[in-house]
Amino acid sequence: MLLKLNAAALCLAASLSAVSGQTFQRLGTCPDLGCVIPPDQQDFLPGQEFDIRFEVHAPKNGSEAFNNGVPDEKFTATIAKDGHKAKSIAEFFKVGEPKLEKWTFSWFEDLFAKDANTPSVVNVASKAYRRVALYEPGDYTVTLKYYNGKTTTAKWTVRPLATKKKAKNVIFFIGDGMTTNMITAARLLAHKTVNGKYQTLLKIDEFPVLGHQMSHSIDSFITDSANSASALYSGHKSTVNAMGVYADSSPDAFDDPKVETIVELLRRIWGSAWGAVSTAFIADATPIALTGHTRLRSKYGNLVDQALNGVSNYSWTKHDGPDVFFGGGAEQFIPGSGSLDGKDYYAEFAKKGYSVSLNKTALQAAPSDKRALGIFCKGNLPVWLDRNVFTDNLATLKNDPSGADGPAKDLPGLKEMTLKAIDILHNRGGKNGFFLMSEAASIDKQMHSLDYDRALGDLLELDDTVRATIEKLKSLRILDDTLIVVSADHGHGFDVFGSSDTKYAAAQQDDRAKRNAIGVYANSGLSQYTQPKEGVSYGTGANFPLNWDPRYVIAAGLGANPDHREMFGVGKKPRTPAVVGADGEYYVNPTDRPNGFVVNGTLPTEEAQGVHSLTDVPVYAMGPCQETFGGTYSNIDVFYKIAGCLGLGQPRNRTLGGRDFQ
Amino acid sequence: MLLKLNAAALCLAASLSAVSGQTFQRLGTCPDLGCVIPPDQQDFLPGQEFDIRFEVHAPKNGSEAFNNGVPDEKFTATIAKDGHKAKSIAEFFKVGEPKLEKWTFSWFEDLFAKDANTPSVVNVASKAYRRVALYEPGDYTVTLKYYNGKTTTAKWTVRPLATKKKAKNVIFFIGDGMTTNMITAARLLAHKTVNGKYQTLLKIDEFPVLGHQMSHSIDSFITDSANSASALYSGHKSTVNAMGVYADSSPDAFDDPKVETIVELLRRIWGSAWGAVSTAFIADATPIALTGHTRLRSKYGNLVDQALNGVSNYSWTKHDGPDVFFGGGAEQFIPGSGSLDGKDYYAEFAKKGYSVSLNKTALQAAPSDKRALGIFCKGNLPVWLDRNVFTDNLATLKNDPSGADGPAKDLPGLKEMTLKAIDILHNRGGKNGFFLMSEAASIDKQMHSLDYDRALGDLLELDDTVRATIEKLKSLRILDDTLIVVSADHGHGFDVFGSSDTKYAAAQQDDRAKRNAIGVYANSGLSQYTQPKEGVSYGTGANFPLNWDPRYVIAAGLGANPDHREMFGVGKKPRTPAVVGADGEYYVNPTDRPNGFVVNGTLPTEEAQGVHSLTDVPVYAMGPCQETFGGTYSNIDVFYKIAGCLGLGQPRNRTLGGRDFQ
Repeated sequence: MLLKLNAAALCLAASLSAVSGQTFQRLGTCPDLGCVIPPDQQDFLPGQEFDIRFEVHAPKNGSEAFNNGVPDEKFTATIAKDGHKAKSIAEFFKVGEPKLEKWTFSWFEDLFAKDANTPSVVNVASKAYRRVALYEPGDYTVTLKYYNGKTTTAKWTVRPLATKKKAKNVIFFIGDGMTTNMITAARLLAHKTVNGKYQTLLKIDEFPVLGHQMSHSIDSFITDSANSASALYSGHKSTVNAMGVYADSSPDAFDDPKVETIVELLRRIWGSAWGAVSTAFIADATPIALTGHTRLRSKYGNLVDQALNGVSNYSWTKHDGPDVFFGGGAEQFIPGSGSLDGKDYYAEFAKKGYSVSLNKTALQAAPSDKRALGIFCKGNLPVWLDRNVFTDNLATLKNDPSGADGPAKDLPGLKEMTLKAIDILHNRGGKNGFFLMSEAASIDKQMHSLDYDRALGDLLELDDTVRATIEKLKSLRILDDTLIVVSADHGHGFDVFGSSDTKYAAAQQDDRAKRNAIGVYANSGLSQYTQPKEGVSYGTGANFPLNWDPRYVIAAGLGANPDHREMFGVGKKPRTPAVVGADGEYYVNPTDRPNGFVVNGTLPTEEAQGVHSLTDVPVYAMGPCQETFGGTYSNIDVFYKIAGCLGLGQPRNRTLGGRDFQ
Repeated sequence: MLLKLNAAALCLAASLSAVSGQTFQRLGTCPDLGCVIPPDQQDFLPGQEFDIRFEVHAPKNGSEAFNNGVPDEKFTATIAKDGHKAKSIAEFFKVGEPKLEKWTFSWFEDLFAKDANTPSVVNVASKAYRRVALYEPGDYTVTLKYYNGKTTTAKWTVRPLATKKKAKNVIFFIGDGMTTNMITAARLLAHKTVNGKYQTLLKIDEFPVLGHQMSHSIDSFITDSANSASALYSGHKSTVNAMGVYADSSPDAFDDPKVETIVELLRRIWGSAWGAVSTAFIADATPIALTGHTRLRSKYGNLVDQALNGVSNYSWTKHDGPDVFFGGGAEQFIPGSGSLDGKDYYAEFAKKGYSVSLNKTALQAAPSDKRALGIFCKGNLPVWLDRNVFTDNLATLKNDPSGADGPAKDLPGLKEMTLKAIDILHNRGGKNGFFLMSEAASIDKQMHSLDYDRALGDLLELDDTVRATIEKLKSLRILDDTLIVVSADHGHGFDVFGSSDTKYAAAQQDDRAKRNAIGVYANSGLSQYTQPKEGVSYGTGANFPLNWDPRYVIAAGLGANPDHREMFGVGKKPRTPAVVGADGEYYVNPTDRPNGFVVNGTLPTEEAQGVHSLTDVPVYAMGPCQETFGGTYSNIDVFYKIAGCLGLGQPRNRTLGGRDFQ
């Protein structure tokens, strides 16, 4: 079987290099002119609902030009479980034959074609079969026949049944963009060593089981947060900017073939409670992908509506919104341009029985028996470092969640939001338990802007939240019933390579001399972040640095930068490393790190920030099923491990209507 | 107890910041003027032999100037097991009172002092107690009293007894400088994905247990390979450039207080066989630290003599050399300047009954019942990529291990050396079993020179060697008796952040335009290294790239660079990124990556290469005791886990004289 697959892979490779599709691709999951979506090599949970789309491509021009750009409208498709005879898709799934769809799209075959503005135009004929499921574990072969004799096949694997609920509750912490390198750096900043021995550790350091997950997309080796979240929540990898769907080539961003997500499954099968907490705007990819089904993550208004009302344009798993929804992003709730059809989504949630909190005081007073919406600012929550150390930065913001002018006040942090979420979910889930996703979003956002200290501060806030969560679960006597997973969705190139003497660096005049402030190896010395400094006290307690601004700071960096100036050490204000020039390209921000030295970038000059990286990311697990999280695996396996532990792999359609609408 | 430690840590911190010792330190493990070595917070294996040194410092000038630079010669020291009364060191360990030693050293308090050339001079009085051991598990307190009332205390912890041998054999693979990021990149280069699913995986991906180890030094947060190897082999962290000792401040590089290593313990207690295999010169830190005891890793000649004859200047664990010693570094064996006292160390090893092999043919013909030395070139072994793909590079070398002019020929790789080592060690270890350390050294060395492809090629060779080793152990029917650990000693800042269109980059004229060849996120596309290319065939078999030089290559980098020019993709010749200028500083090498764009460095301008990084590194384990390697821990714990599995924690002196001299 493996040989057969490798052979398939070779054909794929051959046709790919023929098209030299790499920087750009006609359709990532469709190397041939016939596309089966979901494509070859996909896995499914038994009973998980999904859509199927077939596309036949007829390129009018370019290296693949075929049939004068006329696509075959008479294509046929079958599916066969291994060892059984093939049936038509409609017959096998007992669904009606859908109507034929047609559209045209274009793409660039490489950067030369883009510079020359010579796109390749492709005409498409397509059919989509909606809301089907495979219940029997095993291997299936889907065959698309087109252009009199051309064939595209896809092997699908349905994973084993998992009908028993082994964990009552699951709490899934996501440090967005968090790598092992960042965890090591955060530990150095917040925890003391004496002669090489740490006196205290991060809470995640104490987790019994560690694994690595591979984060790549279905059609690119660098992922974004939408399709990696989709892999973690649905067991199906997707394309950059897509969530809860496989990307097709059609113009409509909401007709792509969908896959059922962990919370849709959990509500349908067990009627459990679920919630999402994030320090990002709540319509951002990681929180919204729990219910979002679109190729375009930027459709924020629609995605908030999908979270509350479910999918409306096609028949899909009934869904009536989260029990807890805490984060930023008031733009999608305040009536106006940012909300869907300009509607007041505070009111829409209230109509469905949600308590609505716009600050920490209201959050903590919110009833634990009602569903709860908490939106605490416009945009992303200010980072931990600004909320706790450089608090002056808050006053300058115009992010009041009510839409009033001026700054958001009385802000909760990840810990306050998460602990309140647990109260409500424990209460509402009852015997059916709950699922909570809690995201430290600004680890990623601050790494993007090369603001290492703000990223590491939010990583420490995540660890502090994990610590408090474990105590909370103990006090509720549900720690032993709760699987806790702490992981990330992708990495950023980052590591610490020494210390920098900020006093010496500031005293030097030219760039090369400033670099000599950096101490490597033995000259890196010891962390000064854990040393008390006269007159410096933030009141941030244990497990955070005693001094964020010592003379000797970490020297750190990424392999993927825009032009920027580097002066290691904390920026009192949030960082903008590069600014756009008259030519639309990004250059060093003259006001950022004025005492630093210039580092020219390694990224395309239209990139304003750092970008994501390839690296496998760590997975920490504790509680029921923890033993299944060791070793190295794909990000989709995180879904199958959690879904298996929750008994979501069912041999027949199982729908508890009861709790779906209350 | 933790509180007490934190209090101690605060005092440490306070006095440190007083001295502002960071880039430079008076003596890293001695924050006060009185030094106890081993210092506070150190762990010991029961029965592990070690030396103790006390130092009293009297700075003549600088911020710590004290007592007119006259050190207290009347200092006293005691040790007490918790709950027992204190005894003098001589009484407790039943050793004689050593004579007083005196010396002077100097250091710079910071970079300003270095620029002004104003060193701080320190006079020292000291005593050293040699070759003692602690047999009873528990906590001990060592107290040094000096200057009428000043006190320095050290808490030592003796780990639990471990007397039972649970694994007959241990094979410890070290990928020098290998991080999770590099493992992810190597997998991308050598293994195919189809729609996001890997069709094959690295062998280490299949290991059942994964952990992370923290690599920092005892007195700096960035380590080198000497003291990290020391931590892995002895359970004692050390200082940069030091191995098998705690660094003292004396001028003699061979009188520093020693600690017994894993192979010294294993030979003394069980009389097992042991071997070291490395792609580095064999006197390099990672292989030689198994037997090396010095503060100065560059004492190559002496270190090779220590490997063969053991420690000669002080009484120490009897030791008569490894059963297997394979690598490069003929300079320390050919009679002449590189060898100790100009002696012929090929002859010295032969005299002790070693077979001596200088090429692969001789290696494979070497008898399996005799001890074996194999030195295959001067310097480091040429990397896998040059030995297998760009073979023209070998002919230009002058590295014949016999000392003759011209290149080394008929070179083995890590796999051939490791498999032969297993034959010999299995044969010679007999019922006593064996320990083998096998190092892929050039992952580190090629990352230093920013030669990512050569580093990743050697990482793939390591994985291929692990794969072949498991097959070999199966065929010898000892797989179930053998603990296999695959880990690293430290990291390098490295990650992959996209792909680069080499054809487009080469066609652009200026640096900023060349950067636009890089594709990030969706534009990273799929790996082209696994696609067959017409006319390209290296015969390197499965689990290596089909094409090392595709049009679309990985875009990767480090945060820690000298000035260099970047043009992603494989360099047909080994890389020298920066060259020294007339001013002794390093600048872009004009002949390196001539089509690339300039990236100015982030390191001190005297650095020619990249440097090590902070990140925790992964630990993969399989076999007896594998379950002990999960989670997150210090690098010293790797030693305690292996030593515990080998039953090396003994309640009384246990010495099998028998096999020590044959």
